[in-house]
Amino acid sequence: MEKILGIPTLRQIEAAQLAIQPYVHQTPVLTNEGINKITGASIYFKCENFQKIGAFKIRGATCATLALSKMEKAKGIATHSSGNHAQAIALTAQLHDIKAYVVMPSSAPEIKKNATKDYGATVVICEPTLASRQETLDKIVQETGATYIPSYDHYNIIAGQATVAKELIEEVSGLEVIMAPVGGGGLMSGTALSTHYLLPNAVVIGAEPKLVDEAYRSLKTGVKQVNKGAKSIADGLLTNLSDRTFEIMTKYVHDMITVSEEEIVAAMRLIWERMKIIVEPSSAVPLAAILQQKERFEGKKIGLILTGGNVDVEQLPF
Amino acid sequence: MEKILGIPTLRQIEAAQLAIQPYVHQTPVLTNEGINKITGASIYFKCENFQKIGAFKIRGATCATLALSKMEKAKGIATHSSGNHAQAIALTAQLHDIKAYVVMPSSAPEIKKNATKDYGATVVICEPTLASRQETLDKIVQETGATYIPSYDHYNIIAGQATVAKELIEEVSGLEVIMAPVGGGGLMSGTALSTHYLLPNAVVIGAEPKLVDEAYRSLKTGVKQVNKGAKSIADGLLTNLSDRTFEIMTKYVHDMITVSEEEIVAAMRLIWERMKIIVEPSSAVPLAAILQQKERFEGKKIGLILTGGNVDVEQLPF
Repeated sequence: MEKILGIPTLRQIEAAQLAIQPYVHQTPVLTNEGINKITGASIYFKCENFQKIGAFKIRGATCATLALSKMEKAKGIATHSSGNHAQAIALTAQLHDIKAYVVMPSSAPEIKKNATKDYGATVVICEPTLASRQETLDKIVQETGATYIPSYDHYNIIAGQATVAKELIEEVSGLEVIMAPVGGGGLMSGTALSTHYLLPNAVVIGAEPKLVDEAYRSLKTGVKQVNKGAKSIADGLLTNLSDRTFEIMTKYVHDMITVSEEEIVAAMRLIWERMKIIVEPSSAVPLAAILQQKERFEGKKIGLILTGGNVDVEQLPF
Repeated sequence: MEKILGIPTLRQIEAAQLAIQPYVHQTPVLTNEGINKITGASIYFKCENFQKIGAFKIRGATCATLALSKMEKAKGIATHSSGNHAQAIALTAQLHDIKAYVVMPSSAPEIKKNATKDYGATVVICEPTLASRQETLDKIVQETGATYIPSYDHYNIIAGQATVAKELIEEVSGLEVIMAPVGGGGLMSGTALSTHYLLPNAVVIGAEPKLVDEAYRSLKTGVKQVNKGAKSIADGLLTNLSDRTFEIMTKYVHDMITVSEEEIVAAMRLIWERMKIIVEPSSAVPLAAILQQKERFEGKKIGLILTGGNVDVEQLPF
């Protein structure tokens, strides 16, 4: 896998797909009669909750790691993350037999810290601030020479995440709308790129919690915004867009929809109860958007990415 | 579909499979690396939690309904049930455009009463005793001429449930052990029959909660026993074997394992967290049995039936 230095081309996304295939699952696409009846749409759910580590993040992490030189690999990889990217980096490192250093805030759930350690990563706990995370990481990188792999502001990460929509588009013909949730925009950028290349007539829509709606405001104003708060039940979507993801999304995402916390919980519950699958709140945000604007989506054939299934079953919002 | 008047033959199970195919899902078989690592076995989970109405019961109900004469169909079908069989009868009736009368105890969860009504059944509420259920049902059958379709003591029901194991055995080659939970024994009887016909060298094991272990005691003593209590978190497994299911299980089930409530909850949690799918407690009983007797199952290729996914997400045991 090459290092990708600009907006990923179709050829580069194809190369990413080929390169990561031995390390990730081709996840199933599910439909549900009950939810189609309720929404009036035909929704094809791409189930990255069944992906390794329980979320799509393993794709980007693998795509970035495979692009490292032998010398870089010998020194290991490093990141900071409170969530799925931590586990993705840890598992990727384990699969490639290299070292991983993961900075995690003290506030991260014990279960995620332990899962990251279980994959063999060196977990370094820091204060629960972005400054402390970056500082702790910088120190580790200086000391070890490990390569920092960010969770979304990286073209190989974006190309890796683009393989989700690529698989979906290749499996289900004739999709008219492609939807995904937006956090830092890594998945959304990849989704928009794959759709642009492979299904240029489809409408690409990002969905975001109202409480952390900077991507919505960024795309509406044309100027990159930041989140005012950092609280939503969709804990995977609290981050801000980066320059890279903002640029791609400005070009290739057609619309954004924001939803309330109540709408997210209701959509999550609908997925749990009707589909009998476990998704994390972030995954439910696009369905919440469809339910909010039913007339707009009625009769449409929609591809929707369920991003992950890592929830603490002792802390459910129901 | 014919009325089956004795222990279903292979030909009758094949006929059942063909007959119900248009009305039921062929459910997927899933595996999970994490659970295989923990158990040391290779487990193939047959996911009836993804079945219509969220449980395997639709198979038997369909197989019994299809065997009715035109005149019988014109008068409708009736049953008493507090759980999945109620919804199965209601949906089957809806799909075949016939009337359904379902007697449900007042203690049944509102969500199940409503789901049964939503499928168009006439729901009649009775006192939460078996006597009241049977009495109320008898009265309805007398008044309407509807045909009573019991939830397991019926050879067409058993043939319908037998299609679960048949699909599993046909999809995954070389299974050495076949496991299912035991309530009234309808699924277990069908599972044992399909395995006997199609995979005669495999070991058939039923799993049951210790708190309602009459099937275990029945098979060990050779004399049909009854449950002393009627309480277990595995609320689908509270019923006693019938003469029909006891006879079949005596012949074709090789062993029974009983598990504690704690073991059931732990196994259920493992399935939720690792597989990201929602199963009801009854479904977790066979995995609990494997975890209890690890050495016995180590290295074995096991087919395991996950019976359903109907849980109240507001009432979880975690």
